Amino acid sequence: MLTEPGRDSEKISKNEFEAQIPQLRVDLINAQYDLTTADFSVLILLAGNDRIGVDHVADRINEWMDARYINTRIFGAPFEEEQQRPRFWRYWNALPPHGRTGLYGAAWPINILADKVNGNFKKKDFERWINRANSLEQDLVNDGTLVLKFWVDLPRKALKERLKTAEKDPDRAWWMEEQDWEVFKRYNEIAKPVKKYIEATDTPHAPWMIVDGTDGNHRDLKIMTTIRDAIVGRLNEPVAPAPAAAISGTSYPDALGAVDLQQSLSKKEYKQKLDKYQRRVHRLMRRAHEAGFSPVLAFEGWDAGGKGGNIRRLTNALPARSYSVIPIAAPTPEEKSRHYLWRFWRHLPRAGNAVIFDRTWYGRVTVERIEGFATDEQWQRAYDEINDFEDQLAERGMLVLKFWLHISKAEQLTRFQAREVTDYKKHKITDEDYRNREKWDDYTVAVNEMIAKTNKPHAPWHVVPGNDKRFARIYVLKTVCDALERALGER
Amino acid sequence: MLTEPGRDSEKISKNEFEAQIPQLRVDLINAQYDLTTADFSVLILLAGNDRIGVDHVADRINEWMDARYINTRIFGAPFEEEQQRPRFWRYWNALPPHGRTGLYGAAWPINILADKVNGNFKKKDFERWINRANSLEQDLVNDGTLVLKFWVDLPRKALKERLKTAEKDPDRAWWMEEQDWEVFKRYNEIAKPVKKYIEATDTPHAPWMIVDGTDGNHRDLKIMTTIRDAIVGRLNEPVAPAPAAAISGTSYPDALGAVDLQQSLSKKEYKQKLDKYQRRVHRLMRRAHEAGFSPVLAFEGWDAGGKGGNIRRLTNALPARSYSVIPIAAPTPEEKSRHYLWRFWRHLPRAGNAVIFDRTWYGRVTVERIEGFATDEQWQRAYDEINDFEDQLAERGMLVLKFWLHISKAEQLTRFQAREVTDYKKHKITDEDYRNREKWDDYTVAVNEMIAKTNKPHAPWHVVPGNDKRFARIYVLKTVCDALERALGER
Repeated sequence: MLTEPGRDSEKISKNEFEAQIPQLRVDLINAQYDLTTADFSVLILLAGNDRIGVDHVADRINEWMDARYINTRIFGAPFEEEQQRPRFWRYWNALPPHGRTGLYGAAWPINILADKVNGNFKKKDFERWINRANSLEQDLVNDGTLVLKFWVDLPRKALKERLKTAEKDPDRAWWMEEQDWEVFKRYNEIAKPVKKYIEATDTPHAPWMIVDGTDGNHRDLKIMTTIRDAIVGRLNEPVAPAPAAAISGTSYPDALGAVDLQQSLSKKEYKQKLDKYQRRVHRLMRRAHEAGFSPVLAFEGWDAGGKGGNIRRLTNALPARSYSVIPIAAPTPEEKSRHYLWRFWRHLPRAGNAVIFDRTWYGRVTVERIEGFATDEQWQRAYDEINDFEDQLAERGMLVLKFWLHISKAEQLTRFQAREVTDYKKHKITDEDYRNREKWDDYTVAVNEMIAKTNKPHAPWHVVPGNDKRFARIYVLKTVCDALERALGER
Repeated sequence: MLTEPGRDSEKISKNEFEAQIPQLRVDLINAQYDLTTADFSVLILLAGNDRIGVDHVADRINEWMDARYINTRIFGAPFEEEQQRPRFWRYWNALPPHGRTGLYGAAWPINILADKVNGNFKKKDFERWINRANSLEQDLVNDGTLVLKFWVDLPRKALKERLKTAEKDPDRAWWMEEQDWEVFKRYNEIAKPVKKYIEATDTPHAPWMIVDGTDGNHRDLKIMTTIRDAIVGRLNEPVAPAPAAAISGTSYPDALGAVDLQQSLSKKEYKQKLDKYQRRVHRLMRRAHEAGFSPVLAFEGWDAGGKGGNIRRLTNALPARSYSVIPIAAPTPEEKSRHYLWRFWRHLPRAGNAVIFDRTWYGRVTVERIEGFATDEQWQRAYDEINDFEDQLAERGMLVLKFWLHISKAEQLTRFQAREVTDYKKHKITDEDYRNREKWDDYTVAVNEMIAKTNKPHAPWHVVPGNDKRFARIYVLKTVCDALERALGER
């Protein structure tokens, strides 16, 4: 396949192999323990046309390193709960925290190739998923993850021998899978997409190492040495100061300023419309539920902008069993030690259920940008990461809608003061709210840039005119109804 | 059913209802916010013969309280990943952290009753699961959870009306479920087990409130008032000092002292047996995998007792895809704010996979007891909680094996000193290890009590003679093999 036919495969003598093992194992264990206190994780991707060889390598890694700090996952056919989410959901969910090693067998390289080879992917789908794979790997590397990719390759003849031997070995035959002989029979046919996939995903930040699998000892030594060198190398790397980001002088359209905050509704009109749209959203959610279609609603906005009240008007119209509301506060340690999008991937709903985020992944490009919790580099690349994330939700049939609850600075002050005297709302106002208020202009710049860069047809922003609470609530309800109707094909 | 036929059902006038709402809602929101900083959680169980009414109540709770801090779960038929675990796994997994409210619809009361009514349970099973339900509720209450149980009850005639109205209502008909009419048709037949279940689970620590569901306003007011009063009452309760536990003077058999630590194996014998048992355990694990049978192996022991080395000899014989090793360190905040068993429930494997715990739930009755991290009351009741937990694993077809790696105090010192000079092991020895060593006698007392109280036929303890590492490793491997063989019916 990737090894030239007829070429001598690489080999190592048993003596030579055994001479190298003791030191290699000590090095690996030491590297692994040094890793436990490091602020990054290691992700090893194992794939190949030699599935049995790949399994052997996974065993070897767990044998020579400390299995307690390795999260091994061999990704076969997706389980029920995985089928109901975007394709990459299961890979995101299984990501190791800092200090640990994730060992992924098969995973996206094999899962994407299988769909291509089995005819489930047209050319365009194949290319799209190759791009997604590259984006995912790039995201992880950007986040500090050390990504190591190994392709274990066997020439056709050697593969046949491997399968025959495995069938005869009582200790191995039971791991034989239906498709193992299939891979052999369609060897030449499969070679082409594999070559394309590997070339397209052999990137500088996450290069492939192609390993000839004919000689098991050679294969294991090569892979294990590479893992050791990569971890040790990375641990010894001086921590480079983050390059000062080139903040462009670009200014973005004033999406917030363009909103007419004078709009309002009378109490009577409000009551009528509230009733109308709550009934409508209830009926539409039923149809979405039956169609296995999941709304993902993201609420952002100024402090006291009315997120809570808006969410309540919406959820009051929905059956409790059909949605969850996820309030986003400071990340927990489990969340902090992974890519910042991990905590949002976790909460994606099953098909037919809705999820409502009260504050969202946009914290990265607003509060984290302004307060310096994210470096310039981090928040600047976040726009692409977010667009890619939302794109995958839309692709899986989720309806992504994003709201910025907009009010004037004067209206905010009025609300803060009103809250301070309202019995059951006073817990809502803290000194931090006043501190945030002083940064109103910084937020305006950040929000306008955010909207300009992430307002997409499949995941649009809606800036809600919020000075009049009644107007805002009907606006949100109507927007959700209209989007659901369009998505369900009623228009 | 539980409401006497012919009796006037309880009602409330619309005016009376509406007069009470505003204050009630303010109270509920305030109680909920005070709860956010409390060190306990609230669990509301909703059940009844009026499923549609129960759904309405769930909506109402989410409407009148703040849905962001309520985790609502309606437990229908179990999903694939739930079917592969013990029956209560999904309830444990969904438990809210401190400060939050869990709203469980149906859950164990309905799931157990459904199995009884559908003939899946014999009398004995029904009684067993009633006991389990009581134990679970008791465990949660002991852990500080406020458990509130509501049974929404409709007389037969009212149920018929409810179903007819629901069928005609375009906004509700879609939530109609197949079994809704079934419940009506078999009304009298179902009444009997329901009565039995409710009586048997109406405990002082988690009493049922039976609510007549004929009048929706009456029903909601009664439930919401009860929730408010219970949360407010609990928040205002003075924190009682933990009662000094009556430590019994009982001494337990010296299980550790009974072990012959002189046993050893020659290097040659060891190599032979290691090879033999590793092959055997590999083959047995294959059969367990095919049978959907999951070993749960718990390793405890003295510091430097050899847990790591033993686990490694075992996992080296297993395919990496078939097991996980879970190292247990200090709990994360997410774990700390739930019942201490929650973090172990989380890691239970799918059918056919093995899980190996490196340190376990027995920390509660050893290190937590000795260091005072658990109160006397907490560690003393833990024996029952643990027995119940392991019983449920065994019942689901899991093979529970527990090892105490035993060495002499002198051998421990030798190992500490050896580790301090071995390059790749020195990270393993800290001052804490020496501090623990000083408490050798306390640990001996605790371990002997632990073994006496939790050594059960379905989850036996094995005290491993560990002074000779070779002997210990073969002992563990052989024990696992023998237990697997017995379980798979080869003997």
